[in-house]
Amino acid sequence: MPAHMTPEEFRRHGRQAVDWVAAYHERVESLPVASRVAPGEVRAGLPAHPPEQGEPFESLLEDLDRVIVPGLTHWQHPSFFGYFPANASGPAMLADLISAGLGVQGMLWATSPAGTELEQHVLDWLAELLDLPAAFRSTGAGGGVIQDTASTATLTALVAALHRATDGAARRDGLAGAGRQCAVYASDQAHSSVTKAVVVAGLGETALRAVRVDPSTQAMDPGHLAELVAADLAAGVLPVLVVATVGTTSTAAVDPVPEIGALCRAHGIWLHVDAAYAGVATVCPELRWLNAGLAHADSYATNPHKWLLTNFDCDAFYVADRGALLGALSILPEYLRNAATESGAVVDYRDWHIQLGRRFRALKLWAVIRWYGAEGLREHIRRHVAAAGALAGWVRADDRFELPAPANLSLVCFRLRGPDEPNEKLHARINESGAAYLSHTRVGGAYTLRMAIGGTHTRLDHVERAWHLVQRLTTDPPGPETTSGSRS
Amino acid sequence: MPAHMTPEEFRRHGRQAVDWVAAYHERVESLPVASRVAPGEVRAGLPAHPPEQGEPFESLLEDLDRVIVPGLTHWQHPSFFGYFPANASGPAMLADLISAGLGVQGMLWATSPAGTELEQHVLDWLAELLDLPAAFRSTGAGGGVIQDTASTATLTALVAALHRATDGAARRDGLAGAGRQCAVYASDQAHSSVTKAVVVAGLGETALRAVRVDPSTQAMDPGHLAELVAADLAAGVLPVLVVATVGTTSTAAVDPVPEIGALCRAHGIWLHVDAAYAGVATVCPELRWLNAGLAHADSYATNPHKWLLTNFDCDAFYVADRGALLGALSILPEYLRNAATESGAVVDYRDWHIQLGRRFRALKLWAVIRWYGAEGLREHIRRHVAAAGALAGWVRADDRFELPAPANLSLVCFRLRGPDEPNEKLHARINESGAAYLSHTRVGGAYTLRMAIGGTHTRLDHVERAWHLVQRLTTDPPGPETTSGSRS
Repeated sequence: MPAHMTPEEFRRHGRQAVDWVAAYHERVESLPVASRVAPGEVRAGLPAHPPEQGEPFESLLEDLDRVIVPGLTHWQHPSFFGYFPANASGPAMLADLISAGLGVQGMLWATSPAGTELEQHVLDWLAELLDLPAAFRSTGAGGGVIQDTASTATLTALVAALHRATDGAARRDGLAGAGRQCAVYASDQAHSSVTKAVVVAGLGETALRAVRVDPSTQAMDPGHLAELVAADLAAGVLPVLVVATVGTTSTAAVDPVPEIGALCRAHGIWLHVDAAYAGVATVCPELRWLNAGLAHADSYATNPHKWLLTNFDCDAFYVADRGALLGALSILPEYLRNAATESGAVVDYRDWHIQLGRRFRALKLWAVIRWYGAEGLREHIRRHVAAAGALAGWVRADDRFELPAPANLSLVCFRLRGPDEPNEKLHARINESGAAYLSHTRVGGAYTLRMAIGGTHTRLDHVERAWHLVQRLTTDPPGPETTSGSRS
Repeated sequence: MPAHMTPEEFRRHGRQAVDWVAAYHERVESLPVASRVAPGEVRAGLPAHPPEQGEPFESLLEDLDRVIVPGLTHWQHPSFFGYFPANASGPAMLADLISAGLGVQGMLWATSPAGTELEQHVLDWLAELLDLPAAFRSTGAGGGVIQDTASTATLTALVAALHRATDGAARRDGLAGAGRQCAVYASDQAHSSVTKAVVVAGLGETALRAVRVDPSTQAMDPGHLAELVAADLAAGVLPVLVVATVGTTSTAAVDPVPEIGALCRAHGIWLHVDAAYAGVATVCPELRWLNAGLAHADSYATNPHKWLLTNFDCDAFYVADRGALLGALSILPEYLRNAATESGAVVDYRDWHIQLGRRFRALKLWAVIRWYGAEGLREHIRRHVAAAGALAGWVRADDRFELPAPANLSLVCFRLRGPDEPNEKLHARINESGAAYLSHTRVGGAYTLRMAIGGTHTRLDHVERAWHLVQRLTTDPPGPETTSGSRS
């Protein structure tokens, strides 16, 4: 018999793992936020060959501390302000452990009915919490599904849009079924996953129209979108999909969905709203303006795994009418046939995404909503929006700095007035200090620091200390402080 | 402040969760394998609206027992023989908990170097354990990456193949860049994900050529493949990809990769080998015949999450030359630029798959390899192959039954001689009994029961008891036993 971990051993090692995670969260704030390892350094600390005989669990835990932790950039550090947050939380982690323990596959309702039904249910709960249009609820023609990421959601939306735009011909004949070129539209600030989606879906990069943004808001210019669509129609090109972004990666800009949606509706173009980061903020009634125009959306995605306390991966993807999605992706080989599917009384999530197999991810979202309650989720969002407002005020009050784009929600983009180079140096010094971690973007071509607030344990005082660090590193010449912070 | 779970609470609730999982594994064998709920029954047990205030963790655990467990089909039950196994194991679960606790994103080397380097390292370990060609190691021109599923791996292979076949034109101009129709080849026994891939990639179902199989082995007929390729070439169609399957879903048939590979090489067609289920078996030297011809493969996928003790999701996807993959999928927006990427000294896994964000999944594969060691992994595989051999012998010895396809590895397909209906009834009675769970397929059109052996805790005695159940339900008329097993 292979040496399986017995339930008794699982209890013992499970306690060790739980304690290790708890201790990691207790000490993460004392670690440098960004890893200081050089390329190859982690691998150099690992044996070249796999072990022939099994090893005790304790040696794995030791190696975590010895090799892995020094090689991590700590996304759960409360002073991690890079990219967008990737919230981890206790209830999500433990529910995900239970999901792993159950080890069920939910590709069909029949392969584990609770997997499908809990997912439908908590996605309806989430739609209610975010005040999404009724069409997105499972009780109507649409419904929600958990995808891994917003990238996959965008690709899935494109496949469904192609199906609808070609009256189903794309499924059989591919893009040739459209009988003409197809076009996809997104602002030049949209996520890189839109480009990836047009490549993967076989349209190619030339099918993607980059819609101009208003330079003051970085939001899509709907007039330019209308021009591009009109030009394509005149040229015999088929407009298939518009991706509107609610909270762009660069500056959290919000595209004008009502105007975009009206245009899409007028021309029968599929509207996908990518609200990966910002969508979950509408759990707060005062932020529901972010939902304006969603009644026009054919599909919508937001990521509880970013800013709503649900460990990665958990992208909530909704469609207003599941017909095109199922039409494009339903495949029922003999080995998956079953009475429940044939009855038509159930949803089979295998038809809602690219993958067949699927984990029981609804458990962690269920656990998060129940542990925090709607009020706890709102407090989490409000705390960060307030901290971002405070930070934007401090930036405005320091005339060495400028805000090249509006501070939206919990993201503040700022830069030293003038050329890029001092900004690049400042950015490097901040991250090398180990005390905070920021990422960057370009706004109107200018190198700009991004401070994305939203970590599970990030409070106003972390933001304040980070801002003081920025100010100090701006004033002080590079000196011993920076040197001591660099790799030794 | 939202009521975050404190480290102390995490320790306490973590113990509860660990104990819950341990107890679940202790009692799972006492539960009916297949859920007996009716559609809607799980949802009916849940509150219609999300809670406004947070709830204690204990109420989640109570609802697991009350609503969720009765709605599950227990894939970790040792008498679950459906589909393919979805192994869960203690070391994988606990390492995945640690991954959740760390909550890092590994889309770039720079966003958490250990995430990338451990993944490269354990995939090299796995390549060594499975004796895969050297080209698949990260030290050469190729390398491995963890994908979620083999479905995504097939799609990714297709995108890379299109890039190579069109000299990069497909990325810019899409399928139109090929200047002609494209074709993909797989046997008529290949997984449904090949169909999904041609639909998602914009080729459409008509681009997929179903290659005939040898009726006695269910393996691809390479002569027919050669005919199809020749006909396409004569018609000006571009052959892009051949998917060879090592271990088909229906009967675990093994396509003749050496012959297929030689043909692919002669015509410059990308060869993807889908060994989702069977590939991991080559951890045993005596099963390395499954690797025959892999030197011709451009890409290869096998799923440790099926039969190698690593919780879902963990598909190991290898390419012999990463150039086409990176050429097709590399996108570097400003907000992801960083010094390590620009140095060229690191791998950024965002370019290796559709998603951008990614969990630290290498931890669980690392934990599995270390806990079991190569010897433990081999014992796991051997135990099931031996049990399948025993089962095939028992089937052969009972002349009411036949084996319509060879029993391969740990999968045995069998049926009652004669018409389908008694087989369908027998299948339903087995699953309704709650004592074992099988799925089915059709072989040469005939309804056939599939018994996929490979559960983490499945032993010979479980297989033997299941076979006795099959025999008993074949002999006995439906009666009280079945009734008592049905939903009450």
